[in-house]
Amino acid sequence: MSDETQKCSIVVFSGDMDKVMAAFIIATTAAAMEMETSMFFTFWGLKAVQKGNLTGTGLMQRMMGLMNRGGIDRIGPSRFNFGGMGRWMFKTMMKQRDVVSLPELRQTAIDLGITLQSCQMSMDVMGVAQEDLIDEIDASVGAATYVLDAQQADITLFI
Amino acid sequence: MSDETQKCSIVVFSGDMDKVMAAFIIATTAAAMEMETSMFFTFWGLKAVQKGNLTGTGLMQRMMGLMNRGGIDRIGPSRFNFGGMGRWMFKTMMKQRDVVSLPELRQTAIDLGITLQSCQMSMDVMGVAQEDLIDEIDASVGAATYVLDAQQADITLFI
Amino acid sequence: MSDETQKCSIVVFSGDMDKVMAAFIIATTAAAMEMETSMFFTFWGLKAVQKGNLTGTGLMQRMMGLMNRGGIDRIGPSRFNFGGMGRWMFKTMMKQRDVVSLPELRQTAIDLGITLQSCQMSMDVMGVAQEDLIDEIDASVGAATYVLDAQQADITLFI
Repeated sequence: MSDETQKCSIVVFSGDMDKVMAAFIIATTAAAMEMETSMFFTFWGLKAVQKGNLTGTGLMQRMMGLMNRGGIDRIGPSRFNFGGMGRWMFKTMMKQRDVVSLPELRQTAIDLGITLQSCQMSMDVMGVAQEDLIDEIDASVGAATYVLDAQQADITLFI
Repeated sequence: MSDETQKCSIVVFSGDMDKVMAAFIIATTAAAMEMETSMFFTFWGLKAVQKGNLTGTGLMQRMMGLMNRGGIDRIGPSRFNFGGMGRWMFKTMMKQRDVVSLPELRQTAIDLGITLQSCQMSMDVMGVAQEDLIDEIDASVGAATYVLDAQQADITLFI
Repeated sequence: MSDETQKCSIVVFSGDMDKVMAAFIIATTAAAMEMETSMFFTFWGLKAVQKGNLTGTGLMQRMMGLMNRGGIDRIGPSRFNFGGMGRWMFKTMMKQRDVVSLPELRQTAIDLGITLQSCQMSMDVMGVAQEDLIDEIDASVGAATYVLDAQQADITLFI
């Protein structure tokens, strides 16, 4: 890897559909432009790399799982959610305009070779197990891995 | 343009008054310090560069327009909005303390030659037409334009 | 100070427990890895460096103080707060998992020599006095100080 490869490093903290979508759009665009791109999923952002429901069995983890159920397809936007209506409106409008969906964007990120990492500490706190997450994710990293990566990056974002 | 010009690149995703204000304060400060500065308005951030109400006529666009009506002067803060009271309190407190308003900050950004760009895809999805936005904006750009710009920037922020 | 020291610059705009925690985790990790690290607290982020309640006496400031009472220990997460329950759940889960608390993280930041700065304009607008903030903070800085610092940084984040 030459020193001239540009790099892009994104923390995905938010679990809101619109912000996760913005993160994937920037990341896949950067990767398509041959930037070495990594996404570090933490806190609510873990939802964007869940397979589906959480499987944790502690009381707290089950409460968190209930409030946070569903995978990437169940995420609502940060505004105007109105019990799911915001999500439906957004999906409908995106479909009308031929904008790709969140699961498709995530698959594109995988296909483009974007490094997907999840924060071990967040997983512990929120009761998310490795098997709850998609197979393509590196689930054993911590903040130090993120910082090392971001140090080398030309674009650093917290979303 | 010499290689030594410092650059600042800001994504304005949020449509909350306080975050938009923070974005304009950082951007105008950077520009006043002779940094080449660009702001890329996307999703709810489009509201900060609207002239006033949206003019879209599709059903979804009209619903979005209703929920998102008014321009930069109708934006509420991200907390304590209480049906507009947060906005009023914030405005009053800023006035008491001689802090410039959002429309003034935006005008300063224009006067300082900050590059203002809006995301075409967000405009399509949210039913925002070019004529809904202020004249100073470049409304035909996409994520690739943003990434190219951010690659060269010394400060990259997502707000 | 050699030119090769890596630097990390974080704007803490949010006053949500989870975001403030993410900011302190990234900052302390960077500082522990010998990066020169600064945190610039502005708007709601001021709450993370308050000693306790605000002492402002103007009408607006007292209203803001009421809505924003308590220091770092009274902060709730950005989601699922349910009148403090989210905070309790988060604290309990963090304790179960041996994750350090927010006050401990802040003390670690101080011990690691992280530069803590608060935005003078935000303090004025929100009625926060210097004596309301922890002693370790530099409370007389503005956006220009932040921009100068961020220009030199390898990691720039807005949280």
